Amino acid sequence: MNRRLKMGMVGGCLSSFIGVVHRMAAGLDNEIELVCGAFNADVKLSKEAGAAYYLEDNRVYGSYAEMFENEKQLPEDERMDFVSIVTPNFLHFDIAKMALENGFHVVCEKPMTVTSQEAEQLVELVESTGLIFALTHPYSAYPLVKQAKHIVESGQLGNIRKVVVEYPQGWLATALETAGNQQASWRTNPAKSGKSGSIGDIGVHAQNLAEYITGQKISEVCADFTTFVSGRLLEDDANVLIHFNKGAKGILYASQISVGEENNLKIRVYGELGGIEWQQQEPNSLILNLLNKPMQILRTGDNANLCKQAIKNARLPGGHPEGLIEAFANIYRNFAEAVRANKVGFILENSDIASVHDGLSGMRFIDAVVESAASNEKWIKLKQ
Amino acid sequence: MNRRLKMGMVGGCLSSFIGVVHRMAAGLDNEIELVCGAFNADVKLSKEAGAAYYLEDNRVYGSYAEMFENEKQLPEDERMDFVSIVTPNFLHFDIAKMALENGFHVVCEKPMTVTSQEAEQLVELVESTGLIFALTHPYSAYPLVKQAKHIVESGQLGNIRKVVVEYPQGWLATALETAGNQQASWRTNPAKSGKSGSIGDIGVHAQNLAEYITGQKISEVCADFTTFVSGRLLEDDANVLIHFNKGAKGILYASQISVGEENNLKIRVYGELGGIEWQQQEPNSLILNLLNKPMQILRTGDNANLCKQAIKNARLPGGHPEGLIEAFANIYRNFAEAVRANKVGFILENSDIASVHDGLSGMRFIDAVVESAASNEKWIKLKQ
Amino acid sequence: MNRRLKMGMVGGCLSSFIGVVHRMAAGLDNEIELVCGAFNADVKLSKEAGAAYYLEDNRVYGSYAEMFENEKQLPEDERMDFVSIVTPNFLHFDIAKMALENGFHVVCEKPMTVTSQEAEQLVELVESTGLIFALTHPYSAYPLVKQAKHIVESGQLGNIRKVVVEYPQGWLATALETAGNQQASWRTNPAKSGKSGSIGDIGVHAQNLAEYITGQKISEVCADFTTFVSGRLLEDDANVLIHFNKGAKGILYASQISVGEENNLKIRVYGELGGIEWQQQEPNSLILNLLNKPMQILRTGDNANLCKQAIKNARLPGGHPEGLIEAFANIYRNFAEAVRANKVGFILENSDIASVHDGLSGMRFIDAVVESAASNEKWIKLKQ
Amino acid sequence: MNRRLKMGMVGGCLSSFIGVVHRMAAGLDNEIELVCGAFNADVKLSKEAGAAYYLEDNRVYGSYAEMFENEKQLPEDERMDFVSIVTPNFLHFDIAKMALENGFHVVCEKPMTVTSQEAEQLVELVESTGLIFALTHPYSAYPLVKQAKHIVESGQLGNIRKVVVEYPQGWLATALETAGNQQASWRTNPAKSGKSGSIGDIGVHAQNLAEYITGQKISEVCADFTTFVSGRLLEDDANVLIHFNKGAKGILYASQISVGEENNLKIRVYGELGGIEWQQQEPNSLILNLLNKPMQILRTGDNANLCKQAIKNARLPGGHPEGLIEAFANIYRNFAEAVRANKVGFILENSDIASVHDGLSGMRFIDAVVESAASNEKWIKLKQ
Repeated sequence: MNRRLKMGMVGGCLSSFIGVVHRMAAGLDNEIELVCGAFNADVKLSKEAGAAYYLEDNRVYGSYAEMFENEKQLPEDERMDFVSIVTPNFLHFDIAKMALENGFHVVCEKPMTVTSQEAEQLVELVESTGLIFALTHPYSAYPLVKQAKHIVESGQLGNIRKVVVEYPQGWLATALETAGNQQASWRTNPAKSGKSGSIGDIGVHAQNLAEYITGQKISEVCADFTTFVSGRLLEDDANVLIHFNKGAKGILYASQISVGEENNLKIRVYGELGGIEWQQQEPNSLILNLLNKPMQILRTGDNANLCKQAIKNARLPGGHPEGLIEAFANIYRNFAEAVRANKVGFILENSDIASVHDGLSGMRFIDAVVESAASNEKWIKLKQ
Repeated sequence: MNRRLKMGMVGGCLSSFIGVVHRMAAGLDNEIELVCGAFNADVKLSKEAGAAYYLEDNRVYGSYAEMFENEKQLPEDERMDFVSIVTPNFLHFDIAKMALENGFHVVCEKPMTVTSQEAEQLVELVESTGLIFALTHPYSAYPLVKQAKHIVESGQLGNIRKVVVEYPQGWLATALETAGNQQASWRTNPAKSGKSGSIGDIGVHAQNLAEYITGQKISEVCADFTTFVSGRLLEDDANVLIHFNKGAKGILYASQISVGEENNLKIRVYGELGGIEWQQQEPNSLILNLLNKPMQILRTGDNANLCKQAIKNARLPGGHPEGLIEAFANIYRNFAEAVRANKVGFILENSDIASVHDGLSGMRFIDAVVESAASNEKWIKLKQ
Repeated sequence: MNRRLKMGMVGGCLSSFIGVVHRMAAGLDNEIELVCGAFNADVKLSKEAGAAYYLEDNRVYGSYAEMFENEKQLPEDERMDFVSIVTPNFLHFDIAKMALENGFHVVCEKPMTVTSQEAEQLVELVESTGLIFALTHPYSAYPLVKQAKHIVESGQLGNIRKVVVEYPQGWLATALETAGNQQASWRTNPAKSGKSGSIGDIGVHAQNLAEYITGQKISEVCADFTTFVSGRLLEDDANVLIHFNKGAKGILYASQISVGEENNLKIRVYGELGGIEWQQQEPNSLILNLLNKPMQILRTGDNANLCKQAIKNARLPGGHPEGLIEAFANIYRNFAEAVRANKVGFILENSDIASVHDGLSGMRFIDAVVESAASNEKWIKLKQ
Repeated sequence: MNRRLKMGMVGGCLSSFIGVVHRMAAGLDNEIELVCGAFNADVKLSKEAGAAYYLEDNRVYGSYAEMFENEKQLPEDERMDFVSIVTPNFLHFDIAKMALENGFHVVCEKPMTVTSQEAEQLVELVESTGLIFALTHPYSAYPLVKQAKHIVESGQLGNIRKVVVEYPQGWLATALETAGNQQASWRTNPAKSGKSGSIGDIGVHAQNLAEYITGQKISEVCADFTTFVSGRLLEDDANVLIHFNKGAKGILYASQISVGEENNLKIRVYGELGGIEWQQQEPNSLILNLLNKPMQILRTGDNANLCKQAIKNARLPGGHPEGLIEAFANIYRNFAEAVRANKVGFILENSDIASVHDGLSGMRFIDAVVESAASNEKWIKLKQ
C-alpha cells in the first residue's frame, strides 16, 4: 500500500489535551495522516477543530456514528483506515465497539472501558473481527522500557523478586474541578471516569508498565484509598501492595495530591541477579545494577548497547532527548505496521503494542483494587 | 565541667562495623573521649581492641558488668560518664538496664531491645533515674532532616496527607550469612536480632525518620513480609501500608534484597500546601515544593535559608559535603550537651535526640508489623 | 491562508540523519507539509527517498535548480512555499541564494555557509527580498532556553559577568571517517565542512546559545585547537576563552573526542544577582540561583512560573518530557508563523527564530576562532 | 610507638573556619591528639581557644616560636610530634621553616607559601631534614579521586587527551570583605593572601587535582583574569587554557563570583579509550565511560570494584556518605603513617599525600598564571 494510513479521530477538539498528543504522534513518522474526525458531540466545536486541522469540511462529523457510516461508504483508498479514540473514559466502549463492527481498526485511550464486562466484549470483538486494536500506554512505548523488558526476558536479573512502581502527581491537590478545569472535572466525575480516580487515570499505566517489563501479571492486591480533597467522589490517592502470578511481590501507588510532583512515574524491578530503575521524567536513562558490579546507565540511542526493540523505537542518536510525543509515536508506528500487515493478510508476531487483552487486564486490576479498598480482607484476587 | 565527657563502650571490637562509627562520631567535636570499654565478651579480643584504641589496659574489660562495677568506684573526674552500647540487638536491654541502675547515662544502638516489654522497662528506668538516654537514629540527625521537621512544624506544608518512606538495600540478596559474613550472620539470626529481619534492622530507621519529620505517630499497619533467600529465618523484604495518628497515610518499606541498592533511605512527605523529599545518599540536599511554585533545593550549610537546628547540626559551609559520621556525631554532641546540663541539674527543653520513648515506639512498630505480616486482618493497630 | 505551508527539501535522502529530524519537526504541529524535494544529487536516490516519503513522483527532483525552476511555475496554491536546506555545509550558500532569488523562503542548517563573505551576501539578499530566513539552531528553541533569555533580559541576574558554555561529544574519538561512517566523513572533510571541524559543527551552536541567552555578542576570542585523531584534517577539539561586547567574560569549548559524552551541550550564565544553568540532555529543567536564595528548578510546562515564550514553545504539561524534535519543531512553527505574516504583508516583531544575521555572526565567530588558533596573538577580535 | 601522635597547631582560633576542620580530621581515626597550639598571635585569643579545646593551659602559646622552643624541650613522649599550620597564606613559610628547623614534621595549608622562592627553600629543607611534610589538598584525598588516578595509571583510558577542571564558587560575588567577613577579608588582601585571588585560594586545588589524577604536569598556560567586584585588589575570576607536559590539553577555571555555586569543584579527564568525571559536591560517585560501553558509576565503599588506595581511604560501606572531613582525615591518617614509619627510620614508598614538591608546583602554577594574565603572549611556560 503505497500511501499513508488514514486516521479518523473521535474526541480531540481544540480544548483537548490528549487529542493534540495523538495527532502529533500519529503524524510524526509520516506513516499516518488525519483525514476525518468527530471531534466533539457539539458539531460546531467539531467543525471548528476540523478547520483548524485543515481537514476537508465534509469529513468533519458531529457524531462518531455518522463518521463510521459515511467513511465506510468511501472508496477504500479514500476512507479512513482506523479510528483513534481520545474521549473521556465512559465513551471508549461504545465507540470502539461500533468501529470494530464497522471494520475499522482502533487506537484507544486507557482505561479501555469503564467495566470489565465491556472490556471482555471488546476482547471477543477484536478476536472475532481480526482487526488491530492498540491501547495507548505510552510509557511502555519508551525505548528504554523496551530495553528493561528485554533485560528481564533475557534473564539478566534472574527470577524477579520485587517491583516498586510509583506514580505521583500533584495537580489535583486542590479542588481544580470546582474551578473550571475541564481535565480535572471529568476525571473526578465517576459518570465520565468510571469507579476509580487515581488508579483509573494513572494507576493503570503503572500496572501496565510493571506487567510489561516483568512479563508477570498482578494476581492479588491489598489497597488503601484516600480522598484527600473534600467533596471529591473518587479516590485521589491509592497505595497498593501487590503480588504477581510468578512470585514477585511489590508496591504500586498512584497519587494525584502529591504537591510538587508532575508526572513522576518510576519503576524499580529487582531480581536475584540484578535490578533496574527507570523514571519517566528522564526517560532516556535506564539504570542497570548487576550483582557486585558497578551501576550502569543505559541510554536511548546508544545502539551498541541496546536490544532490537529499544533501537527500533527510537529515532535519534544518544544525547538528543526523545520525549513523550516520540513514545506515543512508537505506538502509532507499531500499530501502523500491524495494520499494513493485516491489510495483506499477515499477522505480526510481535507488534509490541498494548493490546485489547492488556486493556482487559487493566480493567480487572481496577476492579480488584476498588474492591480491596472497600474490604477488610487483606488480599483480593484479580479475575484471570 | 571543664573537660571532655568520658565514654565507655560495650561492643565495638576490631571486627565491628558500627563500633568504629560510634568512636569516630563521639570524638569528632572534641567533647567526648573514649576511656574504657568491654569490647567483646572474649577478654582477649576486648584487650586487643583496647590496645588498638590506645586505652589504658586496666580500663579494658572482659564484661560490661565488670566495667560498670569498676568504673563506678573511680573518682568522679576519672570514671566514665556514659556508656555507648553497640552490640547485637539481644544484648541492648541487659546492658542498658545495668548501666542505668549503676548511674551511667546511655547511648544505645537501635532497635532498642528485642521486645516491647523490655522497652517499657527501660522507659520506666530512664524516667525514674533521670539519666540521659540516646538512641542512635543517625538519619534523623542529619541537618536537612531537622530542616524538614522544621518545615512541617512551621506549617509550610499545611496538614500532612501522605508519607512515602523507603529503605532498600541489596547486600543480603544472597546468603552471605552462610559465607562467613559476621554482619549478615547475627542480623539473620532471630536469637541475636529479634523477631524481625529487615524491619528490625532498617525499617525502624524509616519509621523513626517518618515520625520525626511529621510529628505524627504510626497508628496502624498492613504488612507483607517475604523471605526471598531460602534457608533464612527472618524476612528480608517488607512492604507496609501505614496510617498515622493525625490522619496521614502512606507506605513504608524495608528491603535487603534489592540488588544494586546500597543504603538508599528516602522519604517524601506531602501536605496540602507542599511537599519535601530527602534521600540519605545525597543528604546535603532537601527538595521543597510549595504549591504552584518552582522546586527549591535547600542545602546543608546554606545558613541564610535554614532553621536553627539545621544550622546547629552542621559544621561546614555549603558545598563541603557532610556525611553519616557527622550525622552520628550530631547525636553525640547533642547527647553531650544534655549530659552536661544534667550534671548541673538542668533539663534541656529540646535536646533533639532520639529518646527512650522513640525506642519504645520502634519496638511497638516492630510488634505490629510482625503481627500484621502473619495476619489476615487488613489493619493491625500499634499499642500506644 | 487556510492550508498548511508547503515545504520543499534539499538533501535529506534515506541515509541522512538530520533530514529525518527536519521532516518530523516540520510536520509536528500540522502547519507544514512536505510536497517536494531534491533529496540527493543522484536522481535515483532522490526518487527513492521521495517514494518513501509518499511524495508525488513528479515533484521529486534530481537537483535543486530543477526544483526551484519547476516549483515556481506551479500555481501559488500548489507550489512549495519554502525550502529546507539540510545538505552538508558547502552547499548551503548556493542553494539558499538560488532559493531567495526565486522567491522562496528558506530554512537552512548551520553553519549557514562556509565563508563570511557568502554569509554577508545572504544577509543582503534576505534584506533585499524581504523573505523569511530561518537558521536551525534547535538548542535555542527549547522552551527553557527561552526562559533563560527572559531571565537575563528582565534583569533578574543583574549585569552578566561570566558565561561558561561547553559542548563535548565523543563520537569522533576514533577515526570513524575511515570506517565508512558518512556523517563522520563529510564533517571531517574541509571541502565539504569548511575550515573548522568541531567549532563549525557544534561550536557554533554553543556560540549561538550563549549570544541568544545573554543578548551579548562575542567580541574577541583566544583559541586552542587540537586534532587528536591522526590523519584528520580539521580540529576535533577546541578550547576558547571569550569576551563579550558588553563586558561578560567566559569559556566556550567544543569537543568531539570526549569519550562517553553524547551531545552534552551545557551553559551557565552568572550575573551580579544570580546565575542559571541549562543542559541539553535534560532540557526540561533550568536551574536558577538568586543571590542568597535556595536554588530553584524551573520546569518545562510549569506555566505558572514561566514567561510567554517558554509557554508558547512547549506543548505538554509539566512532567511529560519534550525533546529535540519538539525544539526543532518550535523553529518550524515560529518560521511558519512568520511566513504566514509575510504572505499578508506583515512583519512579526519577534519571530524568535535564529536569523540570517545570526548565521553571519556564526561565520565570523568561526573566522576569528580559526585565526586565533593559528596565531600567537592572545586575543583576536571578531569582525562586527 | 604505642600512643597517638601529638599535634600542635598554629592558627585555628575560635573564629577560624579551616582550623576546626583540621582538628576534626586529625582526630577522626584516633591516631592523633591535639596537645598544644599557638592559635592566635593575640595570646588571649589563643588561650581562649586552648581552653575550649580542653588543652592544658601551659601548652597554649601566644607565638609559634615560643611553642617550638618549649615543646622541643619536653620529653620525647610528651612533646608534640608535628605541627599543623592553618594560618593565612603569608605566614605559612616562616612557620613551616621554623618547624622543620626545630625537627618537627609539618602539615601545611595550601598554597604552601606566597612565592616560589620560599617554596623552593621548603623543598630543600624537607629534603635535608628528612622530615615528613604534608600539604592539605583534601580533594585529592577523596577515595574516588584515588580511584580516578588508578584508572588513569592502569591505562584504562589510554593516552590522556583532554582535562577540564572547574572550580566555581559564588560567595565573593559581593564585597563581603568590606562587610566584616574575616574569611573574605584576608583572602582578598594581597598582603595576606599573595599575588593571586581565586587561583591562589582555589585554583591550586584544581591544578593539584588535575595533576594528581593524570600524573601529568601543567607545562604552559594562557590566562584571563577579571576582578568583577569593584575595589577588590585580586582577581575573583580566572579562566585558563592549559597544556600538560605529556600532551594533554585542557581548561582550568576558578571563580568566586559565580552566584549560586557553593564549592563546585569538578574534573573531567578524557583519554583515547575512555573518560571519567568526578564532582566534589557528590564525592561518592565517579563516572567512568569506556569506549562504546554504557556509563558506569563507581561508588565509595563498593570495595568489590575499587582499587587498594580507594578502599584504604574510605571508612564506611557503600551508601553511607563520606564527606570533606573524612577526606581531610585521610591526609592526616596517611601522614601519621608516614611519620610513624619515619620514627623507626623507614620511608614509605607511597604515602599518597600531597608533598612539598606538589606545593612548589602549585606556586609555579600561580606564578605562570599571574604572569600570563598580565601578558599579551599567548602561552606562558611554567618553570619546571
